[in-house]
Amino acid sequence: MSANSLQVAVIGTGAIGSLHATNLALHTKGARVSAVMDIDRERADAVAQACGARAVTDAADLIADPAVDAILIASPDASHAELCLAAIAAGKPVLCEKPLATSLADAERIVNAELAAGERLVRVGFMRQVDPAHSDLQALLASGQLGAPLRFRGTHFNPRRGDTIIRIEGAIVNSLIHDMHSLRWLMSAEVQNALVQWLPDRADMPRSARFALAHLTLDNGGLATLEWSGDSGYGYEVGVEIVGELGTAQTHSHSSPTIRRGGGLSQAVSPDWQDRFAEAYRIETQDWVDSIRQGAPTGPSAWDGYMSLVIADACLRSADSGLPELTRAIDRPAFYA
Amino acid sequence: MSANSLQVAVIGTGAIGSLHATNLALHTKGARVSAVMDIDRERADAVAQACGARAVTDAADLIADPAVDAILIASPDASHAELCLAAIAAGKPVLCEKPLATSLADAERIVNAELAAGERLVRVGFMRQVDPAHSDLQALLASGQLGAPLRFRGTHFNPRRGDTIIRIEGAIVNSLIHDMHSLRWLMSAEVQNALVQWLPDRADMPRSARFALAHLTLDNGGLATLEWSGDSGYGYEVGVEIVGELGTAQTHSHSSPTIRRGGGLSQAVSPDWQDRFAEAYRIETQDWVDSIRQGAPTGPSAWDGYMSLVIADACLRSADSGLPELTRAIDRPAFYA
Amino acid sequence: MSANSLQVAVIGTGAIGSLHATNLALHTKGARVSAVMDIDRERADAVAQACGARAVTDAADLIADPAVDAILIASPDASHAELCLAAIAAGKPVLCEKPLATSLADAERIVNAELAAGERLVRVGFMRQVDPAHSDLQALLASGQLGAPLRFRGTHFNPRRGDTIIRIEGAIVNSLIHDMHSLRWLMSAEVQNALVQWLPDRADMPRSARFALAHLTLDNGGLATLEWSGDSGYGYEVGVEIVGELGTAQTHSHSSPTIRRGGGLSQAVSPDWQDRFAEAYRIETQDWVDSIRQGAPTGPSAWDGYMSLVIADACLRSADSGLPELTRAIDRPAFYA
Amino acid sequence: MSANSLQVAVIGTGAIGSLHATNLALHTKGARVSAVMDIDRERADAVAQACGARAVTDAADLIADPAVDAILIASPDASHAELCLAAIAAGKPVLCEKPLATSLADAERIVNAELAAGERLVRVGFMRQVDPAHSDLQALLASGQLGAPLRFRGTHFNPRRGDTIIRIEGAIVNSLIHDMHSLRWLMSAEVQNALVQWLPDRADMPRSARFALAHLTLDNGGLATLEWSGDSGYGYEVGVEIVGELGTAQTHSHSSPTIRRGGGLSQAVSPDWQDRFAEAYRIETQDWVDSIRQGAPTGPSAWDGYMSLVIADACLRSADSGLPELTRAIDRPAFYA
Repeated sequence: MSANSLQVAVIGTGAIGSLHATNLALHTKGARVSAVMDIDRERADAVAQACGARAVTDAADLIADPAVDAILIASPDASHAELCLAAIAAGKPVLCEKPLATSLADAERIVNAELAAGERLVRVGFMRQVDPAHSDLQALLASGQLGAPLRFRGTHFNPRRGDTIIRIEGAIVNSLIHDMHSLRWLMSAEVQNALVQWLPDRADMPRSARFALAHLTLDNGGLATLEWSGDSGYGYEVGVEIVGELGTAQTHSHSSPTIRRGGGLSQAVSPDWQDRFAEAYRIETQDWVDSIRQGAPTGPSAWDGYMSLVIADACLRSADSGLPELTRAIDRPAFYA
Repeated sequence: MSANSLQVAVIGTGAIGSLHATNLALHTKGARVSAVMDIDRERADAVAQACGARAVTDAADLIADPAVDAILIASPDASHAELCLAAIAAGKPVLCEKPLATSLADAERIVNAELAAGERLVRVGFMRQVDPAHSDLQALLASGQLGAPLRFRGTHFNPRRGDTIIRIEGAIVNSLIHDMHSLRWLMSAEVQNALVQWLPDRADMPRSARFALAHLTLDNGGLATLEWSGDSGYGYEVGVEIVGELGTAQTHSHSSPTIRRGGGLSQAVSPDWQDRFAEAYRIETQDWVDSIRQGAPTGPSAWDGYMSLVIADACLRSADSGLPELTRAIDRPAFYA
Repeated sequence: MSANSLQVAVIGTGAIGSLHATNLALHTKGARVSAVMDIDRERADAVAQACGARAVTDAADLIADPAVDAILIASPDASHAELCLAAIAAGKPVLCEKPLATSLADAERIVNAELAAGERLVRVGFMRQVDPAHSDLQALLASGQLGAPLRFRGTHFNPRRGDTIIRIEGAIVNSLIHDMHSLRWLMSAEVQNALVQWLPDRADMPRSARFALAHLTLDNGGLATLEWSGDSGYGYEVGVEIVGELGTAQTHSHSSPTIRRGGGLSQAVSPDWQDRFAEAYRIETQDWVDSIRQGAPTGPSAWDGYMSLVIADACLRSADSGLPELTRAIDRPAFYA
Repeated sequence: MSANSLQVAVIGTGAIGSLHATNLALHTKGARVSAVMDIDRERADAVAQACGARAVTDAADLIADPAVDAILIASPDASHAELCLAAIAAGKPVLCEKPLATSLADAERIVNAELAAGERLVRVGFMRQVDPAHSDLQALLASGQLGAPLRFRGTHFNPRRGDTIIRIEGAIVNSLIHDMHSLRWLMSAEVQNALVQWLPDRADMPRSARFALAHLTLDNGGLATLEWSGDSGYGYEVGVEIVGELGTAQTHSHSSPTIRRGGGLSQAVSPDWQDRFAEAYRIETQDWVDSIRQGAPTGPSAWDGYMSLVIADACLRSADSGLPELTRAIDRPAFYA
């Protein structure tokens, strides 16, 4: 491993960008935040100061800067593809928040660019792969104790955020995309067919989503459902249940004290994703930095980012048609085998 | 309440029939088993002896017998409708095991016969309504703490029984029928649309079912999934989860000791339905007998039996077509309002 | 089993007496409540009417009445011994609520009277033996899966009842007596030594008890602690944990739905003993009646009632001395082997 | 915070020493392992190589070395006091594994040396304070939701390690010492009185301990029990339950998947302390390093190390006398207020 710290530039300083910047600066061994970029100068300055970094407002310069070793993209979704392509062009490793792109075509361009570069540069921010609740379940599946996995159930319940109305499209591309990746990763299978149903959040906005349910069939014969809520009523919770040939398993994610008070026993649920996945985000940046310093980037690839969007694309078409829709994907390049 | 014990005839002495006969004879206050009928004379004799009853091999005589006050039907499914109609014709209360009939047309005939009789005579054996885990959930929903229910998830996992291969049709009409009733009862809604998917139990028998998933849409806008396994790998388990506007709830059914031994903590799951629902079956016959003696039969009605078959019918058509199928039902008679 | 119903007289119609009377009248097959006695005539009348029984105010006449087959004693603690002795003298089976007596000497008189009668007549109301949570644990221990039991922990948490102040003596003789019996029954061992500690409920009443802890050593080398609360803050809960040579186990008693709402997941705890042990009390009277009709009374014996008071006696002495105190018991008569 | 990494010397490379060295080298931001000391040269070399450090066999030189900023003591218990005193003499911050010393007199010398030095230098390795399960419980207590804490129960169950026979003295000073600190920390109280009971591990070795139970009374009137097992039969588990005025709470530490397989549902328990407290040990060194670089050492102090030994001392005397024994401590210096 290189003796020098990896100089990371963080692009975007919203909730997730500033979380990554702080994790890199305070908790990630072998990394330094050299620069922080946001078009909101004030926000960039604040995060930069907390990280001992400089603040900039232009991403292109930052990517090109020879003093920058690696790029973390946490800017608005619509900018992900362009920034990823720029990082690839500069030959620099990139950790790109999900979704990899906002169109399937853009995601395909990134895959092709990485193929052309001939080396693995992109990691997509599907941090659940390093969340202990999820990775323990993956290890269990890998052990063979449950036999072949037959059925996947993902639940993804969010607390309501103020007056925000989420459209079904947003729920799919921005939130359920996590569950689509979890499904592929844990089931070792691809989705063939997707049907999306939802309950509107506001009666006068039929495409607003309060609760959504995606029914997916897999190329190994398996069945999956993804449940999403935009207003759980109790906090933030993500869970996976898998039925295997020999038994079933589900993630277990509540670790706060069991309290007995006022008529019952209770346990707190995480209020938000920051709390629930705090450890996973730390592990993710450490893992990313370690793998770069060791010369072998790991974790969810550009192909994973593309394939999650392939599922999202079928879901979006199903949300329009009201019918099950087949997924449409290019063949998997040997590079990603 | 009448001072005299209710004289009950039990038709059918298989697993469920002999369970009911024993419960009536030993555990149901205010009831006696006066006769037990089975075409298998030996089995009838054995059960009759255990219950202090006489054994017969003809059901028609038994139903007509003036010494018999009420009929419990636990014979093979195909005979349910005819026996129910005979009991109604004799003006005698009947507790009929599910399914009420094996065709929608037969179930409709029973509804019409009861309507013509002008009094409530039929109770269908959906005993989950008196299972504490289920009735506690129902009470919670009724309390309004969860707001309006939006989404129902039923799980119904069975242990494999020897070499038995269950066809998807059998899974629907004989097993999932319970979950269909639970859904209607707990959601206070009717099913509009049903899509059934399943994994074959044997590769060479495409309609054999190892795992099945029914996706249902409800007339109040709600969404439901029913999961069924014919080979859980660990025992027998039935659960319900409901997402409401204000929160979620799920049944809790494991009450055996928590054991720490050999690398982990564990809790036994019921090995079979007899163990899991032992208490519910006792409550069911007591409740049935009490309600008859008080002159006001209660519990799941012939209409409930019919409507569960309406869902099953749509599921069966979906199993053929591979598509979502609309339910088809007659209008609810005012009698069942 | 006798064809006729057992005619039971219920003495005492407070909370526990009326519960038993109702259970006998409505839920116990093979039993009738023939008479109900209470010095409070109005209360006796109310319970008698609900049970279809006659009300009386004199216990002696009732016990002597040839129309009465068996006696259930649920009168104030101080009267238990005298009534038990009268029932034994009349040769009638008796189910006596705990404590069997309020002094060790009185309990010994009952044991001696039963010995003199030469037949088993007394059952003490330690209904936890038939509570499924407890009997499942007992079955687990009997299976040998945990090896020899080494350590017992009993918890017995009560909700505060209005302004009632409970003295440490009352906590021991009236409430912890249950846990003392559970300990003997589940550990198959006797207590040698007892040390009691407690936190006063009111600073100005040093013998008022809010929380009590009994440390007991057993004649098989085992160790036990009993925890008691008179003001749990959340409801009523009874639990047992046992450490065995090969592992540990604890009772599991919460079966209400798991609710997610308002920041956490929760489960209701029983509000009081009536709710928690409703099923156990029903099983207890059914079991008692069945065993009498079969001619072989079972369940906790007069000896068990005596031995629980032997432990209570040592605890009372410890509450006075502040030191560990040895138990003092007569030798077990062969009759109770 | 200083820009330079803290140069840490690790003394002792057994299980806990090499864990700390690895954590410092790979997971602790702002720290470097400059040297590793062990009298076993081979083991020192192996750990040194893994950490990019040099290996030495003399501790005194290392402590004196101006290139060493801070000392981590993980050598055999008997050497802790001397090494701590040397580090204090050198004016260097030290993280000393528990127990702080093997005699109360030695612990007092360390307290006095730190007092003389006039600055906080010692942190004792009671890492449970930063274990999320424990710190969440502490935060709950601090929130006041449970009212004043009345009763503490600590459980500390270890898997058997080969043929190792643990004496009751070892269980107290080396293992239960953790629980003694947890008690003081979570209850904000000191122990007044201690009674220790145990079951021998081998019948012919009365002071061998298989299971131990310490009963402690606190200076705020509270009651505590500590349970320890040297052969749990299932793995490693540490738990705390606290009864407060308004309710109770217990730590919740199992986060592995819930598995349903082979007749039951189960969850893995940590096999050993390394697995259970992996995260706590990482947080501990990071927290230690951060606090030093910020110029304000935090965490369990020399006083905490001393006071835990005060409890252990009373327990050791109780193990000899078989009676409750009063604790004996010097007055708390204002420095540690």
